[in-house]
Amino acid sequence: MYLHNQVIQGLREKKRAALARAVTLVESGSEHAPHILEQAYKLKGRSKIVGITGSPGVGKSTLVDSLIGVIRERGHSVGVIAVDPSSPFTGGAILGDRVRLRSRTTDDGVFFRSLASRGYLGGLSRHTGEVITLFEAFGFDYILVETVGTGQSEVDIMRYAHSVLVVMAPGLGDDIQAIKAGILEIGDVFCVNKADRPDADRDVAVLEAMLALNKDWQWKPPVVKTVASQGKGVPELLDKIDEHLEFLKQSNLLEERVSRSYLAALEANLRRETVDLILSKARSDGTLAHALKQLSEGKTYPAALAKQLVKTYLIRRND
Amino acid sequence: MYLHNQVIQGLREKKRAALARAVTLVESGSEHAPHILEQAYKLKGRSKIVGITGSPGVGKSTLVDSLIGVIRERGHSVGVIAVDPSSPFTGGAILGDRVRLRSRTTDDGVFFRSLASRGYLGGLSRHTGEVITLFEAFGFDYILVETVGTGQSEVDIMRYAHSVLVVMAPGLGDDIQAIKAGILEIGDVFCVNKADRPDADRDVAVLEAMLALNKDWQWKPPVVKTVASQGKGVPELLDKIDEHLEFLKQSNLLEERVSRSYLAALEANLRRETVDLILSKARSDGTLAHALKQLSEGKTYPAALAKQLVKTYLIRRND
Repeated sequence: MYLHNQVIQGLREKKRAALARAVTLVESGSEHAPHILEQAYKLKGRSKIVGITGSPGVGKSTLVDSLIGVIRERGHSVGVIAVDPSSPFTGGAILGDRVRLRSRTTDDGVFFRSLASRGYLGGLSRHTGEVITLFEAFGFDYILVETVGTGQSEVDIMRYAHSVLVVMAPGLGDDIQAIKAGILEIGDVFCVNKADRPDADRDVAVLEAMLALNKDWQWKPPVVKTVASQGKGVPELLDKIDEHLEFLKQSNLLEERVSRSYLAALEANLRRETVDLILSKARSDGTLAHALKQLSEGKTYPAALAKQLVKTYLIRRND
Repeated sequence: MYLHNQVIQGLREKKRAALARAVTLVESGSEHAPHILEQAYKLKGRSKIVGITGSPGVGKSTLVDSLIGVIRERGHSVGVIAVDPSSPFTGGAILGDRVRLRSRTTDDGVFFRSLASRGYLGGLSRHTGEVITLFEAFGFDYILVETVGTGQSEVDIMRYAHSVLVVMAPGLGDDIQAIKAGILEIGDVFCVNKADRPDADRDVAVLEAMLALNKDWQWKPPVVKTVASQGKGVPELLDKIDEHLEFLKQSNLLEERVSRSYLAALEANLRRETVDLILSKARSDGTLAHALKQLSEGKTYPAALAKQLVKTYLIRRND
């Protein structure tokens, strides 16, 4: 049997080793990846996909651990995907999740995978959407996608989620209003973690006041206080996430979210088939170095050069 | 005379109205934009391009104001580009710079422009690199590109800068190590602003210790303390920025930075000529809606669909 058929068979049978294998094959761009993904798209079930974001230091990892506990207590399975920007300063792991969650791997209802992004400037792993699809094919009840809140990863990943949980911690003082401005748009549920700290109630109030500024809510995002290290507030948080998913279904907005995630996956693939392909070809045959030199000498300009490269590498090769 | 020739003539004569006009034409995707940009690339001088990033609330705007003052005292001209994510919560402006800097517009040596990005999820204005080029053509001694530190804008914009200044404020408590992890990679000069606050010295020490972890520095990023509201430390900060640019020149690394900015501009244009073009065409003829439906029904998958769309909209149309 072909490798990709073995892997798909393993996914059907909910074998964790098959899922691990599938993710590795897809992440490494193996020749088996297209076949596996084609089948995985057909197998996709009805996982609840929850994006979890928030700045480092807010206790996101502890909260995810605690959420996993509550999900398991309620008898559901959960897959966790952590997108982990590699950094020369931390030796490749900011989240450190590989270590943190290793203790849970004896539980068959939990599967954890950390995806390396390509550094702070390199951007998100192009394969995140596909890995989510593999997790869906495996059939988890919940899929938690956790990102460290720096750079562009959180923005891109949130496009794949049905519900977005934004995690904050109190104590940011006067800056809270400014800091929240960008993040308010993407959250469906907000969590003020470390809520045993002094400023928690004030921050919850500020956050609720800011959320109230938007009059057009169909769903007014709730703000939940948690102390994840003690498990406090976490069942209530999961309730709110479930409520949001229920709301999406009832209001026919789930379809819109799913469509958004397909568009994100399509864009990632379009980019790979065009921009990435062109740059890779132009790099390997020396055209790119020459072109960048011409740009710096003012002999051409980016818009003209882009048109020319599209012609050379995408269109002419098919003549 | 054609409009684009008038504009270019105005740029040559350092007329501020011409620069304002050029930016508007480029930002709006006018038919005149390609001609203007082609000429602007030839006019480009030797501006020092400084990217300035940091979370909202660290006092970035005040610091930029203060830097402008020091640059002007030293007899240099400065153009400021603020990339400003529009938000439904703040009515379109987080930075609020348009108002803040209006008072300076009687000074001919300062020009300010705020560029709207397309919201937190929509990403950076695709035209940022081109607007920088217009500023370079105008011939400013310094170009400051300021971004609010949320989302992907800071990452993308920093690719256009010769020097990157990362602004922080003390008082983030125990979280400083985690928070800095992502940002350490992109800074050439660090600034701890609001340095009259209690935790400033400790945060400077932590930051310097973390920066010392990287043994491979050719340039060890300095950490400068400022109190921007009082102008304290700001001349020293500008000195450090100048030193970094001098270092780049002496070590022949400036060319590498310039090349990085050309690559960023090329990528933005490639994306416009491929992904954006395909999605726009597929959206307007109804193909996209149909395709997203087929994806959700499992009848195709993103990789296959992407290949098909590239063929339909980029390759076949040239047959």
